[in-house]
Amino acid sequence: MTMHYDQRESRTNDERAASLTTDVLAHIVHAKTHSPAYAEILGDVDIGDLATLEDIAALPLTRKSELIERQGQAPPFGGLAALTGEPLTQIFASPGPIFEPQTARVDYWRTARALFAAGIRSGSLVHNGFSYHLTPAGSMLENGCHALGAAVVPGGVGNTEQQLETIGLLKPDAYCGTPSFLGILLDRADEAGLDVSSIDKALVSGEAYLPNLRQKFANRGITGLQCYATADVGLIAYESSAESGMIVDEDVYLEIVRPGTGEPLPDGEVGEVVVTPLNPDYPLIRFATGDLSVILSGTSPCGRTNRRIKGWMGRADQTVKVRGMFVHPSQVNSVVRRHSEIRHARLVVERLDQADAMTLYCECEHRAEGLADAIAGTIRELCKLRGGVELVEPGTLPNDGIVIEDKRSYD
Amino acid sequence: MTMHYDQRESRTNDERAASLTTDVLAHIVHAKTHSPAYAEILGDVDIGDLATLEDIAALPLTRKSELIERQGQAPPFGGLAALTGEPLTQIFASPGPIFEPQTARVDYWRTARALFAAGIRSGSLVHNGFSYHLTPAGSMLENGCHALGAAVVPGGVGNTEQQLETIGLLKPDAYCGTPSFLGILLDRADEAGLDVSSIDKALVSGEAYLPNLRQKFANRGITGLQCYATADVGLIAYESSAESGMIVDEDVYLEIVRPGTGEPLPDGEVGEVVVTPLNPDYPLIRFATGDLSVILSGTSPCGRTNRRIKGWMGRADQTVKVRGMFVHPSQVNSVVRRHSEIRHARLVVERLDQADAMTLYCECEHRAEGLADAIAGTIRELCKLRGGVELVEPGTLPNDGIVIEDKRSYD
Repeated sequence: MTMHYDQRESRTNDERAASLTTDVLAHIVHAKTHSPAYAEILGDVDIGDLATLEDIAALPLTRKSELIERQGQAPPFGGLAALTGEPLTQIFASPGPIFEPQTARVDYWRTARALFAAGIRSGSLVHNGFSYHLTPAGSMLENGCHALGAAVVPGGVGNTEQQLETIGLLKPDAYCGTPSFLGILLDRADEAGLDVSSIDKALVSGEAYLPNLRQKFANRGITGLQCYATADVGLIAYESSAESGMIVDEDVYLEIVRPGTGEPLPDGEVGEVVVTPLNPDYPLIRFATGDLSVILSGTSPCGRTNRRIKGWMGRADQTVKVRGMFVHPSQVNSVVRRHSEIRHARLVVERLDQADAMTLYCECEHRAEGLADAIAGTIRELCKLRGGVELVEPGTLPNDGIVIEDKRSYD
Repeated sequence: MTMHYDQRESRTNDERAASLTTDVLAHIVHAKTHSPAYAEILGDVDIGDLATLEDIAALPLTRKSELIERQGQAPPFGGLAALTGEPLTQIFASPGPIFEPQTARVDYWRTARALFAAGIRSGSLVHNGFSYHLTPAGSMLENGCHALGAAVVPGGVGNTEQQLETIGLLKPDAYCGTPSFLGILLDRADEAGLDVSSIDKALVSGEAYLPNLRQKFANRGITGLQCYATADVGLIAYESSAESGMIVDEDVYLEIVRPGTGEPLPDGEVGEVVVTPLNPDYPLIRFATGDLSVILSGTSPCGRTNRRIKGWMGRADQTVKVRGMFVHPSQVNSVVRRHSEIRHARLVVERLDQADAMTLYCECEHRAEGLADAIAGTIRELCKLRGGVELVEPGTLPNDGIVIEDKRSYD
């Protein structure tokens, strides 16, 4: 018998739909009442007209760009938050900039459900390889572990050698972080002859989880399951041991819409993931993630009855995620603005040696010595990521309006 | 009238001594009963013989080296912890390695008292420039802020430009972190023409707080007070707005002993700081910090009546703190062992341009090209700090047994 985090995971579709309808409609009333931004966004909506989940498709989408705009006008949260209950404990800053609140609410990001599905329990010791600095990623998983009664080693990013030494001594039973960093830790452990076999389960996220990495983990006795979470929303969907698609979180209403519109697509068509997470403190309504995915037919063999998505199938817009960090076209434009020599640029993201790599192709009339290095320095500064730089002749790059080209394959 | 965090801060000496005697003696019983290590360490002690605080001087010291040894034999806590109450939430790893627990106990590290003295209150927004990764520093201050009802922006270390942008937009009223990083943030803000004047108070720690930095902050309208805290103990002492010494935390029994012994010194003599923090989860008894300080006479003009120490006056042993990170002689020895060319080495720590700088002087017979760079890489890897390398003739360095020489002045 498969263990579930709670009985809600195995409800019938009718039970879930009935409960979700009540909860989502009440949530919309809460947002309109307590979030000044949603009072405005939903100003024309007569909530009395909403009766079913399908009716919600009539509400406007909230896009990342709108968060940036509203928050820029009224930091930190642009009137989007509704902090009427639990006290605010943290403010995180993601590129954009976009600010995300965390409150004292238990399991604020709802990650406990995904951690449970990955086999993490009360008494587990979890090595957390996500960053805690500015981004909510580290806190997001730590918070869920604490809700489960699991303890965390906050490894963060960098300091690989000290992280490995710590894993060797503390013998955590679980890892969470990006899949590529777990791959790096395992390779380095092999090189150093270090035993890290205490880890037999992992919850990975933050970047595409490629089949060869999943297989590599399995070969070492590690069941590595992924979850889909974002800084704005927290948990959206998660894998179970069935490894058969990503099950939607019980506290998220998820739609797949035609990219660039708010129009829901029939199940099976690839579109943009739009979510309404039931977070009363930060009530995003129909938040457009910019991620592409598709609803899978049927349900998971693990007995969890909720709808499943295929997982992340790319970005609906040109924003990309490189080594777990978002890179926005606006950041590429900032790099270009810093160097007057660049006439036109295009960032190409590829997958090299099981890791994300990015190269900025720059059209420059004069290609002075040291210019490429200077541009690379600016990329590192503004994108918080290393990137290669190639200086090319003017007129070489295609004139197709694309600032960021993602050449990675996610099959 | 000066505001205090609680009424305990203004107790009479007799009230405090009576209460501390009761609490410390009960704490020793708790440690002997619930911590397997202290059951052993205090095995010969007849607790019935202890009646006054002075009697405690008969108990053995617990040194950092003993933590390393016991924890190495039985990770994570070597039987020192007594986790009978609140659940374990985090395990931190400091160089040594030494592991530190954190539990769900409110204000686990007792930093709220120091934050309050620095002017931080419920509703404050605190930019936290301490690292959250492996070290407890970031969590230590965040935890105290949450106990006060203050929210935190987890800035961490690095990403200076993004931290500055975040400060400019979120307008925190307070900073915590190392004093030198606050100095860097202010300088960078000036260069970039960024307004960071929202910060009018700071709680700094983790390194020596030099008078010129304190003055620099004051000139910009920032009251920057320091606290003395360690990864093992949490808060030990803190400054108040009187800026007149560091007041001992109400939940710490502090002794100043002759370095290398457990013998208490008369007030006014410089010696090693030994503390017994009343943390039931990790009950360190007579923990020798390795730090030098001295008891000041009289009490603080702010009305807090507890004893005061001068603050950090250097290390009782050769272990040094460089840019907020400990460097142990054992780490220097590890660097030497990696490079067979080095016959003898001496790490010299200095203060250059208001920042800590360290240089490893290495006696080498043959000084091959690239060797200095390779050694510098090893320093960075093993000490997590940048250090310069100077290759010198054999016989150049003094033969005085000193591995780490601290040339900084703390007056």
